[in-house]
Order: sequence, then C-alpha cells, then structure tokens
Amino acid sequence: MSIAEAGEFGLIARITARLESGPASLLGPGDDAAVVASPDGRTVASTDVLVEGRHFRRDWCSAADVGHRAAAANLADIAAMGARPTALLVALCVPPDLDTTWAEDLAGGLSAEAARVGASVVGGDMSSSPTLTIAVTALGDLGGQAPVVRSGAQPGDVVALAGRTGYGAAGYTVLSRGFRTPKVLVEAYRRPEVPYAAGPEAALLGATSLIDISDGLLQDLGHVATASVVGIDINRDAFEVPGQMRDAASALGVDPYVWLLAGGDDHALAATFPPGVTLPDTWRIIGSVHEGTGVTVDRKPWQGGMGWDHFR
Amino acid sequence: MSIAEAGEFGLIARITARLESGPASLLGPGDDAAVVASPDGRTVASTDVLVEGRHFRRDWCSAADVGHRAAAANLADIAAMGARPTALLVALCVPPDLDTTWAEDLAGGLSAEAARVGASVVGGDMSSSPTLTIAVTALGDLGGQAPVVRSGAQPGDVVALAGRTGYGAAGYTVLSRGFRTPKVLVEAYRRPEVPYAAGPEAALLGATSLIDISDGLLQDLGHVATASVVGIDINRDAFEVPGQMRDAASALGVDPYVWLLAGGDDHALAATFPPGVTLPDTWRIIGSVHEGTGVTVDRKPWQGGMGWDHFR
Repeated sequence: MSIAEAGEFGLIARITARLESGPASLLGPGDDAAVVASPDGRTVASTDVLVEGRHFRRDWCSAADVGHRAAAANLADIAAMGARPTALLVALCVPPDLDTTWAEDLAGGLSAEAARVGASVVGGDMSSSPTLTIAVTALGDLGGQAPVVRSGAQPGDVVALAGRTGYGAAGYTVLSRGFRTPKVLVEAYRRPEVPYAAGPEAALLGATSLIDISDGLLQDLGHVATASVVGIDINRDAFEVPGQMRDAASALGVDPYVWLLAGGDDHALAATFPPGVTLPDTWRIIGSVHEGTGVTVDRKPWQGGMGWDHFR
Repeated sequence: MSIAEAGEFGLIARITARLESGPASLLGPGDDAAVVASPDGRTVASTDVLVEGRHFRRDWCSAADVGHRAAAANLADIAAMGARPTALLVALCVPPDLDTTWAEDLAGGLSAEAARVGASVVGGDMSSSPTLTIAVTALGDLGGQAPVVRSGAQPGDVVALAGRTGYGAAGYTVLSRGFRTPKVLVEAYRRPEVPYAAGPEAALLGATSLIDISDGLLQDLGHVATASVVGIDINRDAFEVPGQMRDAASALGVDPYVWLLAGGDDHALAATFPPGVTLPDTWRIIGSVHEGTGVTVDRKPWQGGMGWDHFR
C-alpha cells in the first residue's frame, strides 16, 4: 500500500505499532508532545538529518538499515557528551508513492537501534516531500556528570579512540564501485557499530574532551584542536589496517589510511585524557595534544583529504 | 553568496551569529549536542517539519516569516501539554544554490519567535537537499505540573478556546488566489499569533484535556474526542466572523465558517475544563463534552470539510 493510500493517520498508526517504549518514555507518541524523564535536571539534545541520495541510497541500504544509521548518528552525538541516550524524535518526509512498509521498517530500525542503549522513539512528525528525508533528534541524560565538550583538551593530554574507523568509509567506497562485498565493510556502512557506553565511561575516566567521529577522524579532531586552542598529533602506527580492509583497498586502488584517518560513518568516539591516565580496553591511545594548532599525522600535515563538507 | 560558496562550516558560523541564547541553554550550538536545563526532571519534546511547497512558499513568506512559522508550530505543541518551551533544535536541508542570507534570516526568525517565550535555538544540523526542508524540535518544562493530554475530557466538561482560528486559513486562501491583502489575514498566515502562555495557564486551571489546533479546530478536537472516548459539540454562535474576514470570504466566495472551524495554521489552543470552572479572558467557551463519539456543530455533523491530511 502506498503512503498516499494509507493516509497520514493510517501511516502514523502503522509506524507507532513498530515502536517499543523505553524506560525514560513517560508519555510516548500520540499527543502534541512527548514527555521524557530527565532525572539529572539537564537534557542533552542533538539533531542529525539524513537526505536520500546524500546520506543514504535505497538500493544500498534496506529501510531498517537506514533506521539503524539515522538513530546511530544521533545517539552517538549524545554519547559524545558523556551522556546516555533516553529518547528519539523523528521527522520523516516521504514521497507519497513510497510503500508504507518502507516507513514501517525504517521505524523498526530506529526503534531497534535506540533499544540497544535503553532509549526509544517517543515522538515525531510526518510530511509528504519529493525528497525522502529523515531528521532525528536524540535526547540524553548526563547522570550527574559534567558534559564533556570539545574545548577542554590540554597540551600533554593523550588522544584515545573508542570504536573503529575506516569501516564505514570502506563500505561506502565498495558500494559506490558497484560491489556488495566484503560483507564486514558493507555492513559497517549500513549499520554502524557505535561504542555508546564509551561516552559516559570517558566522562568518568576524566576525559578533557570528547567528540563523535562522524565526518572523519582528522576533520573532527580538527574541531577539538580549534575549540581547545591546541595542536593534535596522530600516530599513524596506532592504526593497523585490518586484512579485509587491506584487500579491498588494494583491489579498489585506495590508500586504506584515507579510510582510517579521514573516513566518516563509523561514529567512533575520540577523547583526550590527562597524561598518565589508565584506560580500559575500550580506549586505545592514538596520539597526543601539544601547544600549537591543527592536526598532524606523525608530526606532518596530512595530504590524503580531510573528510566531508555537506555542500561541496 | 550561495550556500555552496560559503560551505557547511561557513554557513553554520553565519547562522549561529544570528541566534540569541536563552536562560535554559546551558550549552548552545557548537558541540556534539546541546545541554538544556530541565529543572522539572521531565522534558516535553515535540518535532514538526515544514517542507517547501507543502507548508510554505518562498514567494508568499520571507525567510524570517518561515522561521517564525516553523518555531511557532513547534512551540505551540509544547504549550499544548501545559509546558513552557525552553529550547529549539533545527535540522535545515537547503538547495546549495540558496543564498546564505535566506538561511541567516530564517535563523533570525526562529530565534526571535523562540525569544518571545524565553526559549532559544540551542542546536541543529544542516545538509544540502533538492527540497528546502526545516525540521524543528522543541523542548519544554512542565514546571511541576502534570502534562495535560488529549485523553482526559469528561462528559459534562466545557470546551474552551484560547487564541483565534480562521485567520491563518483565510490568509492562505487570500495568498493562493494571488492577493496580498487584507494584511491582517496574510500576516496571520505568515506569522501565527500563538497564545503560548494559555498552555501552562490551562494546566493550572485544571484543564482535563488540551490540544494545539494546527490542522483545524474540528479535526483536532476529533483527536480529543477519540482519545477521551467522548463526543464534543461546538456552538457555531460562539464564533463571530471578524469584519475583514467576512469581507474577504464574500469577495472570494468562501464560507468563513470553514476557515473558523476547519482551517489550520493559527495554532490556537483548545481545552476542556470541568463544568462550573471560572475562566480568565484568555479562554472563551465554545462547546461542551457529552457521552458519545465524534465532533458535531450545533449537534449536527459538519459538512464543510475537516482539515488537513498531509498525504491527500
């Protein structure tokens, strides 16, 4: 059935049937607004939008994949403040001839990804549009911790990474060349594996800065360097190229370090910690903070491209 | 300068320069997420999306107008829970050839409308898209009151209205016929006058249900009737047709009661109160709740059309 046939309220009923309710959802979909528990007295809030053809393609990703990706991009931003996600709100703009099952499966993916961190979809809005667009807002709770911002990195700090980089970008390149394997790369692009728990963990470990790597490690660390008025140097040797990534890079004629250091879409978390910190296995040290400006690799400017500008 | 020339981060800098910070904004734009004060321990949250050609036209509304409208639609949803808005987040999808001043003026309108209720724009996201789209999420605080939902109306309650109806729909009809006057109607469409304070006031007055009239009074009261499992009857005589609306209706060959009872876009608030309630001037009684189902006008089915389905 097309969305035009189901009608706005018919589609809303089908979608809300796919949503699970989380513990922070005090009042879920169906009223003018939702009510979300905010025990901390502060709410962390972030919005990320995905536009078809720009952020996803329906022939590359299932509707459920797009739901997982859209949720992950937003939930990662909450984790990157050191907070735990509590709720998602979703504005969905769809062509009227889209099948309702696509929207229902999208909702299922959003709900399932949110459930991984104990959050749920509490509200949203829907409109017809010639361009399939998904704008998600994530809310989160700081649990009594101070938010970990981008501006606190200090010369002498170590730079550490939780989660993996390069997989999403490699998957994107594989798909864009018309391939569907290696599966580990393609699946990484379709459904990022975000180290959500590492966000609050970093806050407890005393992180001086924390950021979600959405546009590429070097570009996003550049935001930390600018906000903190420091320089950051990355050790290339801290990054090993996984076997399947090396094979794919070789087959496609790509330098895999471009994926690892400048590729987006994995939503790893990068943090700076004071020198001498003892880090659990979640975090591995990849560089250091010094007086200066900008981001270097092995003390040299990076020549391989810097990531993503959404208008270029 | 086009947005493509300014680049993503150039545009973000221009936009954030236009935003004022409100008292609930503990951490505003520029990090992975914002932090908003939520003293009540609960956060009210709602999302509304505006799509060009569907919810606004650039030849009918200035960028600042669109900003006011987008903010008003969302802030009204927060008021319709009995809450006070604290913050907005904005996902903006723009064609790359759009002039940056349009986006900056939009931000100015969003910020100015939010400032009317002491809220501010705390975050957002931006992407290129062939379809100009603005998805706004509003957050709010209940100030210790219970949220006023749609499902609490009781037989015997009175139905009351805060704010005006018909103006926005009349302005829309005027514009769609190619006219630019009467100014009071056109301006009502461009910048709704939302009775924000009436929301928390209704909660304090003991409202049994409360709803934002965004799609038309009868359609939205239909949601209250369904959720509360009651019937609602509206007194047509409670609605006087203002002079300029009567003149415009007559000139355009429209029944002005279609605007008043079924027109959207004004974001008035409708509430039900227990019988015998003493209401301040903000609220005027327009009908009553009875056992039954559906919404009637003077005890008869309404024949003039029921409002807005975003896919039909």
